[in-house]
Amino acid sequence: MKYCFGVDVGGTTVKMGLFQEDGVLLDKWEIKTRTENEGVAILPDIAKSMEEKMSEKNLTTSDFVGVGMGVPAPVTKEGIVYATANLGWGYKEVKRELEELTGLEAHIGNDANVAALGEMFQGAGKGYKNLIMVTLGTGVGGGIIIDEKILVGTHGAGAEIGHICVSNDEPEHCGCGRHGCLEMYASATGIVRLAKRKLAKTEETTVLNADTVSAKDVFDAVKAGDKVAIEIAEEFGTYLGHALSNLAVVTDPEIFVIGGGVSKAGEVLLGYIEKPYKEKMFFANQLVKFVLAELGNDAGIYGAAKLALS
Amino acid sequence: MKYCFGVDVGGTTVKMGLFQEDGVLLDKWEIKTRTENEGVAILPDIAKSMEEKMSEKNLTTSDFVGVGMGVPAPVTKEGIVYATANLGWGYKEVKRELEELTGLEAHIGNDANVAALGEMFQGAGKGYKNLIMVTLGTGVGGGIIIDEKILVGTHGAGAEIGHICVSNDEPEHCGCGRHGCLEMYASATGIVRLAKRKLAKTEETTVLNADTVSAKDVFDAVKAGDKVAIEIAEEFGTYLGHALSNLAVVTDPEIFVIGGGVSKAGEVLLGYIEKPYKEKMFFANQLVKFVLAELGNDAGIYGAAKLALS
Repeated sequence: MKYCFGVDVGGTTVKMGLFQEDGVLLDKWEIKTRTENEGVAILPDIAKSMEEKMSEKNLTTSDFVGVGMGVPAPVTKEGIVYATANLGWGYKEVKRELEELTGLEAHIGNDANVAALGEMFQGAGKGYKNLIMVTLGTGVGGGIIIDEKILVGTHGAGAEIGHICVSNDEPEHCGCGRHGCLEMYASATGIVRLAKRKLAKTEETTVLNADTVSAKDVFDAVKAGDKVAIEIAEEFGTYLGHALSNLAVVTDPEIFVIGGGVSKAGEVLLGYIEKPYKEKMFFANQLVKFVLAELGNDAGIYGAAKLALS
Repeated sequence: MKYCFGVDVGGTTVKMGLFQEDGVLLDKWEIKTRTENEGVAILPDIAKSMEEKMSEKNLTTSDFVGVGMGVPAPVTKEGIVYATANLGWGYKEVKRELEELTGLEAHIGNDANVAALGEMFQGAGKGYKNLIMVTLGTGVGGGIIIDEKILVGTHGAGAEIGHICVSNDEPEHCGCGRHGCLEMYASATGIVRLAKRKLAKTEETTVLNADTVSAKDVFDAVKAGDKVAIEIAEEFGTYLGHALSNLAVVTDPEIFVIGGGVSKAGEVLLGYIEKPYKEKMFFANQLVKFVLAELGNDAGIYGAAKLALS
């Protein structure tokens, strides 16, 4: 039996996993992400932690097929990062540096894309080859898997589906500087935006409080039958479902996997996305399934392992 | 030197090409597409024509790496067609049948996708690996090339970009039964639709005649400085440019190749597409190029040859 490491680099912690080549996770742990000094310590810290784990398990590099790693930035096919928002890195040849530090073949991907690969490998998308994962968190992230491979794109910026423009009438700015991006309506913060707008103009009674409302509050209220919350969920679902119908026309997937913090609302969420999807879908895309992600925060290490094993 | 055939099956003629393995087109010809009796004669006719050409050139099957073919229908990875609008075929195992008829390894693709591959192979997209071709004809067709390979999709329905929904307010139906598809505004017939709507409500003088206007008339008038025609072109370009900016967010391409009958308007067309594209684009997609297709009706046979050679 051979092994690999799956590594998921975040802005505060690095999640790490030791996997068998059949995809079984043997051990997982975390280390701190030291972003100071342009993040110079991050890769050496990871390499050191891998070395310690090998020693602990009585393994050597010859027992390993390689290491896979997801990072929060666009990553080119060559494993190069040009800039990061949260790690301190500017231009960095991540693949080369990690290989030099570890002596293992390294495969690097964007974290959202790698998470999608993880859900295909051992999660909600197991058994599928054409999958789109949508991560509804602070923003909206995405990963598109075509024939079991990540759609990386020319600049490593494939599947930036949170920045599909879904409204030409939006007066506010998205974080990216444009107007009307999907993540302005379908992320946790986007749902709060929709809720505040609705609450400012509705006369209906509702349990929601405009000053403190969260995405979780909205879906808790939906489950309790709150009419205003249901209208907010319908608006969220319409933006997202219509965007996914256009994504399906472009990529013809088998399955959408919905993850991220917002997906903790559970199955109720899927109905609000599927209904507007079905209203807009192209006939060739009518068999697409919608499921909730299963791996939670481990999707990244599973996907990174799959990168190493492919 | 080895050879291959590139075949492009249309509803009235089959275009055929004999290629060297380095991509040089040695000979091209056409045969009639006999669609009667559920198109039962189409593949045997093609096989017979290939045999005659081999005999004429003193070649045998052992001189060939294979045959590639584009057909006007969704085609699965396994070379299976489930239905065609123009050939008479229902379910057909096209790859298997063509291989049995010819003794050559066969590769089958959707015609619009294959044309995109052709432009990458020997046309306007030569040297690029990530390309999107948009064919502006009676409808709007598309092909997405990722890492030199066609994005086929689960059901062979990838890159149906004419059916991206770009308007929620459209009262009329698209041919697909939905409302507001891109091809309702960006195809030759879509441009006529935009022109008629504009002409019905404008007070401006114009050379355009609402009863007879064609897409060519519109762009001829644009070149002559006709203000109404320019407004129609701007509207066309806004729908298309915004749709392409969303496509870029999803697939991160290097280049858009614009083909089909409408593209005969020439370079002037690109400006009307690029300006709204740039207004909407995500920052990661700012380096995308826009070019006109170069291979015209030969794109299909070139792409089919590339399928055979890959």
